[in-house]
Amino acid sequence: MISVLDDRISLKCGAGGRAMRALIKDVLIDGLAREMRDGEIGLGALDDGAALRVGNQWLVITTDSHVIKPPFFPGGDIDRLAIFGTVNDLAMMGATDVLALTCAVIVEEGFPRADLIRIQASIRDTCREASAAIVTGDTKVMGKGEIDGIVLNTTGIGLTWRVVPDSGLRPGDRIIVTGTIGDHGMAVMTVRHGLAIDGDLRSDVAPINRLIRAALDSVPGGVVAMKDPTRGGLTSTLHEMADKSGVGIVIDELALPISPEVRAAAELLGIDPMHVANEGKALLGVRPEAVETVLRSLRAQPQGSQASVIGTCTADRIGSLVLDTGFGRRLVAEPDGELLPRIC
Amino acid sequence: MISVLDDRISLKCGAGGRAMRALIKDVLIDGLAREMRDGEIGLGALDDGAALRVGNQWLVITTDSHVIKPPFFPGGDIDRLAIFGTVNDLAMMGATDVLALTCAVIVEEGFPRADLIRIQASIRDTCREASAAIVTGDTKVMGKGEIDGIVLNTTGIGLTWRVVPDSGLRPGDRIIVTGTIGDHGMAVMTVRHGLAIDGDLRSDVAPINRLIRAALDSVPGGVVAMKDPTRGGLTSTLHEMADKSGVGIVIDELALPISPEVRAAAELLGIDPMHVANEGKALLGVRPEAVETVLRSLRAQPQGSQASVIGTCTADRIGSLVLDTGFGRRLVAEPDGELLPRIC
Repeated sequence: MISVLDDRISLKCGAGGRAMRALIKDVLIDGLAREMRDGEIGLGALDDGAALRVGNQWLVITTDSHVIKPPFFPGGDIDRLAIFGTVNDLAMMGATDVLALTCAVIVEEGFPRADLIRIQASIRDTCREASAAIVTGDTKVMGKGEIDGIVLNTTGIGLTWRVVPDSGLRPGDRIIVTGTIGDHGMAVMTVRHGLAIDGDLRSDVAPINRLIRAALDSVPGGVVAMKDPTRGGLTSTLHEMADKSGVGIVIDELALPISPEVRAAAELLGIDPMHVANEGKALLGVRPEAVETVLRSLRAQPQGSQASVIGTCTADRIGSLVLDTGFGRRLVAEPDGELLPRIC
Repeated sequence: MISVLDDRISLKCGAGGRAMRALIKDVLIDGLAREMRDGEIGLGALDDGAALRVGNQWLVITTDSHVIKPPFFPGGDIDRLAIFGTVNDLAMMGATDVLALTCAVIVEEGFPRADLIRIQASIRDTCREASAAIVTGDTKVMGKGEIDGIVLNTTGIGLTWRVVPDSGLRPGDRIIVTGTIGDHGMAVMTVRHGLAIDGDLRSDVAPINRLIRAALDSVPGGVVAMKDPTRGGLTSTLHEMADKSGVGIVIDELALPISPEVRAAAELLGIDPMHVANEGKALLGVRPEAVETVLRSLRAQPQGSQASVIGTCTADRIGSLVLDTGFGRRLVAEPDGELLPRIC
């Protein structure tokens, strides 16, 4: 946690853990949040985005900056992260159709033109894959040494009839993850560390708006909370959902879908896949009576073939995450933020 | 102009001149622009933002990143630039009411917490001044040396019944500037160079959405083109409007409103105020029969008290800017981009 004595911003504030949430809440939100009308979601909610009433629909808005090294990695690159990340943040609020994207590029003097062209071509393919379009943009060039390579900012706008918050969990609700965990973070880290892993360890970066639409349509009102476990992984995301909803969450460790390649990388690096970023997965809170139908609808999609029920919400241990290992139960602490190098 | 032989991005690509427009068009836009429906304005138009049909209104969207050194300067700071710049870009498309703003912050490890708090407080005041609210945001921390201090990205969203493009000029239309020119760029440059100028040389950074609303309401349909002369100043902005509209523009040099302080700084630095950025001014293209009424409506507002008719559109010299000095006429070339240090 940042204390009032910290007079300079530290790297751990950017890692998606408690230090970051403290920075955002203390410094950036307090005093900025405007009054929201009935049901609207604004800055104060710290959700994946905002939801505003426009006529009888909801305008959902989300923004994200992307700084990643290396800009190209197995299974993806910076613009796939940026665009799919934004498309997925909209989907996490219930806006599974993208109305428009913006893209602002900040590039360092001397950045290779060929890389910029490669990124541009990838943006085009990426948008097509997500059925999204960039409608406006901005370009800035900073001097040599003033920025490290390239930064992308994307803002997404969607219209929807239904909004799903990240705070709608009640005791008894089940937690579904839409597929294997840890793939993105482990793929980026093995490249960074030059590790050789048998098999095909690739980032899972992908748009999941169609997958989410299928889940939402399968049982109207059945999915009551959603969040994508990006920075900070399942651990941070589940802590946040538990905290905001006022429930505890018990996770069944043996039910977590993890690929053999991620298991191998996790052992080599000594990092728990639950702490690692995902870029094409979602955590869904589902009413118990809807669980079977939602799970079936997810598994019917190629992206959801490994969807699994991994946990249950409880009325006790509010805000806590408990891991049931099969042998016993232990509390999972939320990383403060400096556990992992920044990878998104 | 960037040639295909340039294999690295150079600083002049960020300065708002021809090199920048070539970079954006060649590398970032071609292939990305989606097909627009009737009357919609998208990426291909290179306007201040996009305009999409939502029901029977227009959703106007604009995005901008802000990198400025120093982050605090006489008359403003980075967040006033960011937020007012976005509010003004919306206004330049006709959306004089702000529906929502997003704010994404990228900050360098070690950035003083006190400065971040000062910026946050200023953001709050700035939003109030522009009757705008930030509804969602994002925070990233980059390592020491990976970014130079702080970068802000703001996206603005507005709803409007009328859209004004930057390309609607016809021969005979008059050009109005809403006030004195060159104040922002000269204020930042004198600080950077440590120059002492008599008088009060301050940035003009301000929201002008209410001023623009007054002008648009004064004669429905009378204002046919708008653009704010930020990076690249009047010179680049008028070139762009002339080029897109397919007209020439003759500017009456003696009619340009310039403060004594800006004149003094311009002489010391040897820089023409027409090339320098403004952050609280607009250029309006107005039908001849509406000019008197629009001018009167602008001058009735405190921010528009020095509004002036400064030029006329012609059917010849298409895409060119001609300066009438009172003694004769000369062509004004568009700076390629490296004339000035980056100041926004």
